[in-house]
Amino acid sequence: MIYLDWAATAMLQEDIIIDATKKAFETFANPSAKHFAGKLAHDALENSRKEIAKLLSVKAENIFFTSGGTEANHIPLLSMLNLKTSFSIALSTIEHSSFSSQIKILENMGIKVLKIPSDKNGFVSAESVLNTIQDDTVFVSVMTVNNETGTIQSIKEIADALKKYNLEKNGRPVFFHSDMVQAIGKIPVDLKNLGVDSASFSAHKIGAPRGIGFLYLAKNIDSFIRGGGQENNIRPGTENLAGIIAMEYALKNHILNQEEYLKKAQKLMSFLIEELKKIDGIQFIPACRENIDNADKFSPWVLQFANASLPGEVLLRCLSEKGICISTGSACSSKKKSNPRLQAMQVDPKLQKNICRVSIGPTTSIDDIEKFIKEFKEILSAF
Amino acid sequence: MIYLDWAATAMLQEDIIIDATKKAFETFANPSAKHFAGKLAHDALENSRKEIAKLLSVKAENIFFTSGGTEANHIPLLSMLNLKTSFSIALSTIEHSSFSSQIKILENMGIKVLKIPSDKNGFVSAESVLNTIQDDTVFVSVMTVNNETGTIQSIKEIADALKKYNLEKNGRPVFFHSDMVQAIGKIPVDLKNLGVDSASFSAHKIGAPRGIGFLYLAKNIDSFIRGGGQENNIRPGTENLAGIIAMEYALKNHILNQEEYLKKAQKLMSFLIEELKKIDGIQFIPACRENIDNADKFSPWVLQFANASLPGEVLLRCLSEKGICISTGSACSSKKKSNPRLQAMQVDPKLQKNICRVSIGPTTSIDDIEKFIKEFKEILSAF
Repeated sequence: MIYLDWAATAMLQEDIIIDATKKAFETFANPSAKHFAGKLAHDALENSRKEIAKLLSVKAENIFFTSGGTEANHIPLLSMLNLKTSFSIALSTIEHSSFSSQIKILENMGIKVLKIPSDKNGFVSAESVLNTIQDDTVFVSVMTVNNETGTIQSIKEIADALKKYNLEKNGRPVFFHSDMVQAIGKIPVDLKNLGVDSASFSAHKIGAPRGIGFLYLAKNIDSFIRGGGQENNIRPGTENLAGIIAMEYALKNHILNQEEYLKKAQKLMSFLIEELKKIDGIQFIPACRENIDNADKFSPWVLQFANASLPGEVLLRCLSEKGICISTGSACSSKKKSNPRLQAMQVDPKLQKNICRVSIGPTTSIDDIEKFIKEFKEILSAF
Repeated sequence: MIYLDWAATAMLQEDIIIDATKKAFETFANPSAKHFAGKLAHDALENSRKEIAKLLSVKAENIFFTSGGTEANHIPLLSMLNLKTSFSIALSTIEHSSFSSQIKILENMGIKVLKIPSDKNGFVSAESVLNTIQDDTVFVSVMTVNNETGTIQSIKEIADALKKYNLEKNGRPVFFHSDMVQAIGKIPVDLKNLGVDSASFSAHKIGAPRGIGFLYLAKNIDSFIRGGGQENNIRPGTENLAGIIAMEYALKNHILNQEEYLKKAQKLMSFLIEELKKIDGIQFIPACRENIDNADKFSPWVLQFANASLPGEVLLRCLSEKGICISTGSACSSKKKSNPRLQAMQVDPKLQKNICRVSIGPTTSIDDIEKFIKEFKEILSAF
């Protein structure tokens, strides 16, 4: 198997998961239980929180465990439902489907949703954010790394602009959230100094199991979803300790090896782009990606492109038969018919169905890329 | 260690979890991905759904995986927020904190919440439900087995009464949900014929890991929480496949051995009750539990009682120092100051602080119970 769909789910770090599973056996009790077994579980939970916070140079009290990225995106968004006055929320057009689907429900409730446009390369500027928000806007979300194009957004500029705006504003400050599912552990993220109010993360993107993630909260919120008071009333439900420990270990691996992993990814990605450029009719999405000078505007872990002749789904199936895994875009959008993020980037509708995404991980080799290119060319020439 | 807090979290079925973890290694990809690795994960996911459905004699399409019991309780409740007209919801006073905390948020939004009283023994009758609901009531919840008292509620009678009510009613039928977290896998539950519209379950109550559960839905709902379209738009987020497989295995173990497990639990529980009755000042909660003739009205896995002299927290700590784990009540309520469920049962406020809960599991032995009784007596006599 040549696995090139790491942005959907990373290959598992099996040794790490086995270690975490064993540690969870020793700390099997309910972390809210008051007896010694509960205390052991509670201590393990808080230890993981502390370790994760240390890796990200933030405080443990800012980390809240969730069942994944979707829930971590929802918690700050839905907290706005507790407001007593009417309000609007503003989301960039490149957000993940965990946002774009949820806002339709909020719109049905009568909440005004503003769309922050990206430029045609999929970048959202601070200016675009300021031009979109209105006096009653209480929530802004712009994802840090887009899961399809790999664009790295100017989160610090947007946060700074919103801070300035909030200072001058009369009334409730705008809350700024960023989906960092494709960023944390993959590219350097200075969480504290970026200036976001919250950020989401999902562990299965870096080799931990599916079903675990966290929400970073720089400031307290009034959570809409409530239950047993776990996670300081931010996220209810008995904590998934095995998943949390595995997330801690996987994040440690990614953060401690980040420089090496990044260098390798950049090298592989440059090679992949150069090889694709040699193929007739390849269109990078966004187009500016083909210019090597733009490399630092993109995550080196993910690449989106279209070919002139073959539908992405056909290509995906042909490659899959040869043991190569790629995707046509976000797995979380695989059940949707249209892709609002491509529309936002004004991608030619005829090309949209010919799009595919290649995403790599720490164990991807140059050999994997070469084999992919070879098979890709063969498939294209056969049609 | 003598572990008597199974109602909070069961001891892990370690062999089962190791097997599930290994199977999850082979099916690591995103179940929504379209390549062969995604298909393998998708097939494993659907296989677990089929197996779980078969164990419960329902259809696979009625089972929706969630991150646990709290989320499974929230999904049908929150789906009511999509209604365009004003409405009321009715919850029994014995519900788990995943409901009782969430309804405060809904009340703040202006939603009318009706409380269905239990009798002083903690039982909720169909009559009480019918007397509480109003013309605009769209949602009723009564849990099947209370997590503290172990009362088994007359779910079929309530469902039948609501069906009759709905037939005669002009307008939107009442949706009937039941929290079955302490019921499924523990006592016989004829899910299909009980007549509930939905039911929740949490796997860490039967030896699977924390962070996984399911929602049984007899009829379709319009989910309020949305994202990538997973679980047929009922619950978004990449599916926790390792947890799901472990849940399947743990449930299989509990359902296939149910008769044997139940018989043993009933024997242990009768012994425990008889031994406690010999101790001065023990008050069972509810009081009717001391009568052996009432045994089949209670889950044999959980027992709540108060003693005359010692605060539950002190007792818990003293037992914990001797390696014995019990609780003072629901772990999910351990952060709350008052217990509305005890208030609902009109338990003497002076006794409320002296309450403890003993809950057993399939590996609990008569020796465990004897040691607990011995240490319990010693602690009481020392004060």
